[in-house]
Amino acid sequence: MKLSFEKVGLASLALLAATGSALAQDAAPAAEAPQYALASDTAFIFNTLLFLIGGFLVMWMAAGFAMLEAGLVRTKNVSMQCLKNIALYSVAGIMYLLVGYSLMYTNVNGGYMGTFAVYGWPAAGTANEGSYAVASDWFFQMVFVATAASIVSGTLAERIKLWPFLFFTVILTGFIYPIAGSWQWGAGWLSEMGFSDFAGSTLVHSVGGWAALSGALILGARRGKYVDGKVIPMPGSSMPLATLGTFILWLGWFGFNGASQLAMGSNSDVSDISRIFANTNLAAAGGVVAAIILTQILYKKVDVTMALNGALAGLVSITAEPLMPSPILAVLIGAVGGVIVVFAVPLLDKLKLDDVVGAIPVHLLCGIWGTIIVPLTNPETSYVTQFIGIVAYGVFTFVASGVVWYLLKVTVGIRVTAEEEAMGLDKAEVGVEAYPEFGQGSQRA
Amino acid sequence: MKLSFEKVGLASLALLAATGSALAQDAAPAAEAPQYALASDTAFIFNTLLFLIGGFLVMWMAAGFAMLEAGLVRTKNVSMQCLKNIALYSVAGIMYLLVGYSLMYTNVNGGYMGTFAVYGWPAAGTANEGSYAVASDWFFQMVFVATAASIVSGTLAERIKLWPFLFFTVILTGFIYPIAGSWQWGAGWLSEMGFSDFAGSTLVHSVGGWAALSGALILGARRGKYVDGKVIPMPGSSMPLATLGTFILWLGWFGFNGASQLAMGSNSDVSDISRIFANTNLAAAGGVVAAIILTQILYKKVDVTMALNGALAGLVSITAEPLMPSPILAVLIGAVGGVIVVFAVPLLDKLKLDDVVGAIPVHLLCGIWGTIIVPLTNPETSYVTQFIGIVAYGVFTFVASGVVWYLLKVTVGIRVTAEEEAMGLDKAEVGVEAYPEFGQGSQRA
Amino acid sequence: MKLSFEKVGLASLALLAATGSALAQDAAPAAEAPQYALASDTAFIFNTLLFLIGGFLVMWMAAGFAMLEAGLVRTKNVSMQCLKNIALYSVAGIMYLLVGYSLMYTNVNGGYMGTFAVYGWPAAGTANEGSYAVASDWFFQMVFVATAASIVSGTLAERIKLWPFLFFTVILTGFIYPIAGSWQWGAGWLSEMGFSDFAGSTLVHSVGGWAALSGALILGARRGKYVDGKVIPMPGSSMPLATLGTFILWLGWFGFNGASQLAMGSNSDVSDISRIFANTNLAAAGGVVAAIILTQILYKKVDVTMALNGALAGLVSITAEPLMPSPILAVLIGAVGGVIVVFAVPLLDKLKLDDVVGAIPVHLLCGIWGTIIVPLTNPETSYVTQFIGIVAYGVFTFVASGVVWYLLKVTVGIRVTAEEEAMGLDKAEVGVEAYPEFGQGSQRA
Repeated sequence: MKLSFEKVGLASLALLAATGSALAQDAAPAAEAPQYALASDTAFIFNTLLFLIGGFLVMWMAAGFAMLEAGLVRTKNVSMQCLKNIALYSVAGIMYLLVGYSLMYTNVNGGYMGTFAVYGWPAAGTANEGSYAVASDWFFQMVFVATAASIVSGTLAERIKLWPFLFFTVILTGFIYPIAGSWQWGAGWLSEMGFSDFAGSTLVHSVGGWAALSGALILGARRGKYVDGKVIPMPGSSMPLATLGTFILWLGWFGFNGASQLAMGSNSDVSDISRIFANTNLAAAGGVVAAIILTQILYKKVDVTMALNGALAGLVSITAEPLMPSPILAVLIGAVGGVIVVFAVPLLDKLKLDDVVGAIPVHLLCGIWGTIIVPLTNPETSYVTQFIGIVAYGVFTFVASGVVWYLLKVTVGIRVTAEEEAMGLDKAEVGVEAYPEFGQGSQRA
Repeated sequence: MKLSFEKVGLASLALLAATGSALAQDAAPAAEAPQYALASDTAFIFNTLLFLIGGFLVMWMAAGFAMLEAGLVRTKNVSMQCLKNIALYSVAGIMYLLVGYSLMYTNVNGGYMGTFAVYGWPAAGTANEGSYAVASDWFFQMVFVATAASIVSGTLAERIKLWPFLFFTVILTGFIYPIAGSWQWGAGWLSEMGFSDFAGSTLVHSVGGWAALSGALILGARRGKYVDGKVIPMPGSSMPLATLGTFILWLGWFGFNGASQLAMGSNSDVSDISRIFANTNLAAAGGVVAAIILTQILYKKVDVTMALNGALAGLVSITAEPLMPSPILAVLIGAVGGVIVVFAVPLLDKLKLDDVVGAIPVHLLCGIWGTIIVPLTNPETSYVTQFIGIVAYGVFTFVASGVVWYLLKVTVGIRVTAEEEAMGLDKAEVGVEAYPEFGQGSQRA
Repeated sequence: MKLSFEKVGLASLALLAATGSALAQDAAPAAEAPQYALASDTAFIFNTLLFLIGGFLVMWMAAGFAMLEAGLVRTKNVSMQCLKNIALYSVAGIMYLLVGYSLMYTNVNGGYMGTFAVYGWPAAGTANEGSYAVASDWFFQMVFVATAASIVSGTLAERIKLWPFLFFTVILTGFIYPIAGSWQWGAGWLSEMGFSDFAGSTLVHSVGGWAALSGALILGARRGKYVDGKVIPMPGSSMPLATLGTFILWLGWFGFNGASQLAMGSNSDVSDISRIFANTNLAAAGGVVAAIILTQILYKKVDVTMALNGALAGLVSITAEPLMPSPILAVLIGAVGGVIVVFAVPLLDKLKLDDVVGAIPVHLLCGIWGTIIVPLTNPETSYVTQFIGIVAYGVFTFVASGVVWYLLKVTVGIRVTAEEEAMGLDKAEVGVEAYPEFGQGSQRA
């Protein structure tokens, strides 16, 4: 792995040759041409590096969802939640290669979807035309689709079968998300209409939330959750794991929002990324502070899960427009997200809508909030168009997901038996207990 | 999120225009001017990128403190420790925006504090003058103040009330830390005197440690900790979480020390950052090895918590000067830190000073050690000035914090009741048990 | 830590001076020279930054191994596993400074080892000649040797004594790994022969695996593991920690493979890094999907530990050549790794070879698989040479490690007593229980 001198020498020669050819082509205005050639080269590297750093940060969010969900489900379902999260991340990557990326980004041309095709990239040792390496863009977009799939996993925990869930993930990451995504980020019809969603409050978080909602409705609540008009608490197994998951997601979000600037090759681009980092952090902070103050007032105690969901609520809320708000507005936009979550979590329970980790309030509702508020700070957008986009994404994702869930339900079935649910999915489907030596856990509730 | 061609095109045009204007302004020495323009542009991006990467690594340290403390407190207080850590990080960010940053960096001019003002940054799509984006600097400095606040959280765990703790965090992150910081990093009086603290052994770690110490003295020890002249062990609930927290902090420290170089736009700057990475790692390694050898000799066993604190001790020790020491000296400076911790932890117990996670030995004592030893390798500093700085930070922080703790104590009270302490803060103030299914835990001692 | 204007000014002046001198030297072809000077400078920074980012990502893998192993051993040995992992990482860093790096990279010249010497780097504020900062390269190579040592730790868990294990780590990281590594990455005899191992399927993973295998044979199985021809399951204590560890390793692997490109200063280099990121992710995904499908077919359940090991298997398999395969081939290469692990884990048990975490199937067998398949996609390599390299590394590491283990066994002893093993290493050697309040755990089997 040591740098060979040949390699370095060759790279230097290649740089020289590239420069030389650039010089040759633009021989007339000699003073300017080399500047452009060089700046373009450096910008290509910076842009690609942004995708790579952003990409690994968002990949890390897969671990965040895994830990958050492992902490918020009961002991008897923890292994399953770990398994689902690593499996869905893997499935998402392969499906996005086989069909998703092309469907989302190739030949959309203002329309409703792209081309069915396996994606690929130029051979090793070469660089494509354009301003960034296409493989880095694929990597960055791929981790986004995985995020959408992770959202579904949390809501449906503790009662859905493994394989139907993974089959749904195949459809979501290969087709539903890419088709919906093409409308905006693939330069489809919503993009032409002027809809704006910087990093995916709607395209990623609400889409994941709508898919989760349709699943929750068709799957039904956990047995014993709603009894005689009462909501039975089923507390999560590990608060530190849930906290860890939230911190991981917060960290990953700098990549999620920051690298959605899509360019780092100029002073103004990297300054925008800096503003996005700061605003993203402030919105999360606003969500936490709002949530803990509100829960103290409402309940006289500060539920740590509300603080965690407050952070995520702030993050989702700022994602549609992390660049334009002033820092103070970023705090406030996040704080409203925190308030939404504190009120929506018990509301869902009143509707007997069983969302194990609170993903629907966090990702769907705050995703809507973040998207609708964009025109407040971004003068190039309108509330009407934002509303149209939100509705379009909602209707399409809810219906398409619902059809898939329904077909799965009436064919292979999506729900474990009552015995399996009581026993826990870890024994029923995984065969490995999460904490085999902390015995009481797995027998209780 | 797909790169629009317009955007790339515009960015390229902007680059060209900038180059063109640079050329126009410096038309006379045409051969040199473009070089400078370009190098400056690239350096701006590199410098800003350094702050962003360093910033997200230090932000991640907030998770490290959360996990370390969650692992070192007893089960019945774990949810509270998670809550405090995510809340203090949020509070720190908002306070540093509202008042802290300006107080620390604006118009200090050799004096004792800056200006009271809300911080802000230029509008989206623009870049400020200077050599880095100001928002990236804000982000990087903000995560440092959060680190100082995290230190306090660990020492006072298991008996302090939530809200008074958060109120203290407001004062610490909005006023005490920024005022103290302005003396050195804000170009205040200590900076003019020649004091040196590269990345904050004193400014961050000792300041956090002094605030923790004054709090511990005013708050008192946990009930049952010191009985009839004996020290009652209260072992932490989860060694893997404490280990995870330590590894997270170690990782984050590369950003903490490395990005404190503050520039990455030249070969020598990035080489300095590389030396800092290597030295930081070696000091931590020295702390671990010293701690485990010493505990083996002293106690015939190797306490894992001492190995973890040894790592942190090494990291704090090298933070005042991670650049100048040779690699071997870096190991030794860290090793002395490890020795300090092994002796200081039981010493504090003899003084009946109850520091739940060992934060005072690690952050305060090793912070002092790291700062006083700077002149050994940095010829531009003097032991006398280093001593003056250490004393100044100590007196100011200890007294200012003590006043705040005292006022809180005599007004709202800072300590939970005996019943609440016995029951655990999770039930008393959070209402959510950390591990609800591992039942015995929460009833025991 | 605030940027001083002097500093920035001086850096700018230095850049100008460097440019000026470059101009002066190459005055004749004035148009080209500045390009090269500037590009070289920028490339130096990019290359060094690649090592720093790659380095901190691989450093993070130390935490991944710690969590994976903490999750896969039983409660009574968890503190010990945490201790070993932080200690081995520390020892590896110091040994690689004292002797390892020079032994691996200095004056190998086609031979069998380099020079015995302490490593060092130029003084602060300077930059070395060449295309990257030497300290950044040291940092990056150092975290690789720690990875090899981590592999050994997992296999031998739950019965090896602490200090003999650490002594072996001294020998492995100071001598065995560096000597073996010099053959290829130090430009030694295997490199001259045309052997190829891009990021270390053999040099890191198989070497770690061979050292683990020889240790396992000499150390023997855990008491009670193989009884009357039956394999007694000893399930790991925490699936979420094992999952977390796997995600950490997956994240770190982007640095492991990506930064092994060793250069980021050109469009084609950063494009190669992007391809490596994508392929690395796809191979891991292939390993997961293959493992879960296969376990479902074989056992009618999906063991989460197999999914985790499937991910790691995919990662190790692609490590010898992460650049050349097409994305589809990357999936398939990883999938074969997943299949290998699913079959090899029970096979080792049949051979009564007790590998607590499955490190031998993952790192040794998939390391061999990844190395032997390189010629399929890299036309500059041959199956014969790959085979020679695999055998050479195997024989040397197995024998050298075996000698060390044997000498340790017959002198100080490497195995705890039967009582200590039953009681658990946490009580026997660490004196700190991992989860002191979840009582049953530590008393059970």
